[in-house]
This record gives sequence, structure tokens and C-alpha cells, in this order.
Amino acid sequence: MMKAKIEITLKNGVLDPQGKAIEGALSGLGFQEASNVRQGKVIEFEIDAVDEAAARDRAEEMCRKLLANPVMENYSIAISA
Amino acid sequence: MMKAKIEITLKNGVLDPQGKAIEGALSGLGFQEASNVRQGKVIEFEIDAVDEAAARDRAEEMCRKLLANPVMENYSIAISA
Repeated sequence: MMKAKIEITLKNGVLDPQGKAIEGALSGLGFQEASNVRQGKVIEFEIDAVDEAAARDRAEEMCRKLLANPVMENYSIAISA
Repeated sequence: MMKAKIEITLKNGVLDPQGKAIEGALSGLGFQEASNVRQGKVIEFEIDAVDEAAARDRAEEMCRKLLANPVMENYSIAISA
């Protein structure tokens, strides 16, 4: 059983209202040094596969078919033992 | 200007209905090999600080004061140039 970790972030240029809200809240608390705040998702799970390459292929397919919206989002996949 | 990346995940034992919903959807699409799915957040931003240690301290403070709920969530901070 391996572990998969998928990070999904909005593409550059896609408006990120959540990120903007966080940036405003940080600024209101005195953290003016934070700028260009963006919020993304991380999805972690255990994956049953014969090897790391197979696990990565399946995780890639999960991203394309369900987890990520390729029009607006980038994703990266990390597989670990 | 450095980059900060903060990963916020639910602590073990905290129910994760979003993760369960993703697991159900994956299973329905034929991805039965994924189990124990958990969803977290990743927050990325640029941070203005004199050095990496200072940036980390401020990011830590942001997590404690706003970004994470320490009762239910773990967080990890990565600072890069």
C-alpha cells in the first residue's frame, strides 16, 4: 500500500476569491508582509498498486477524471511508500 | 521576497466528510484502489522578511492566529527563496 498526495492549485490568472479573503484577513491582523495569497487543495490517500509507476498512472487518471478541473487548475502528484 | 507554502490537514481521528465524498466518487468511477482519502488545504503566498527564519516565524504566527485550527488541524510550513 503506497501513499499518494495530490496538490491542486488554481492556474495563474484564475481569480482566487478565497485567497483574496485570506489576504485581507491576514492584513487586518497585522500581517501586511503576505501578498499574492492563493489557496489550493491537497488530497491524500492510500493506494493499492503493484509499483510506484502504476500508482502514479492511476492517480493521474483520477486527477483527469475527477479530482482536478484542467481548465482552471494545475495538479501535482507525489507517491511514497 | 520569499515564498511560503502552508499545508493544513485534518488531524487523525477527525472526521473528514469531504474526503469520504471523494472516496465514494472515486470508487463509483472504478478507482477502488484508493482508500482513507483525506482532503486538506494548501495556502501559498509571497512573504516579505529579512531572512528565512524570520519568514518562518511570521508564517507560524499566521497559522496560529488565523490559518489553522490547532484543535482539529495540523499544519506544516515550507519557505523557499
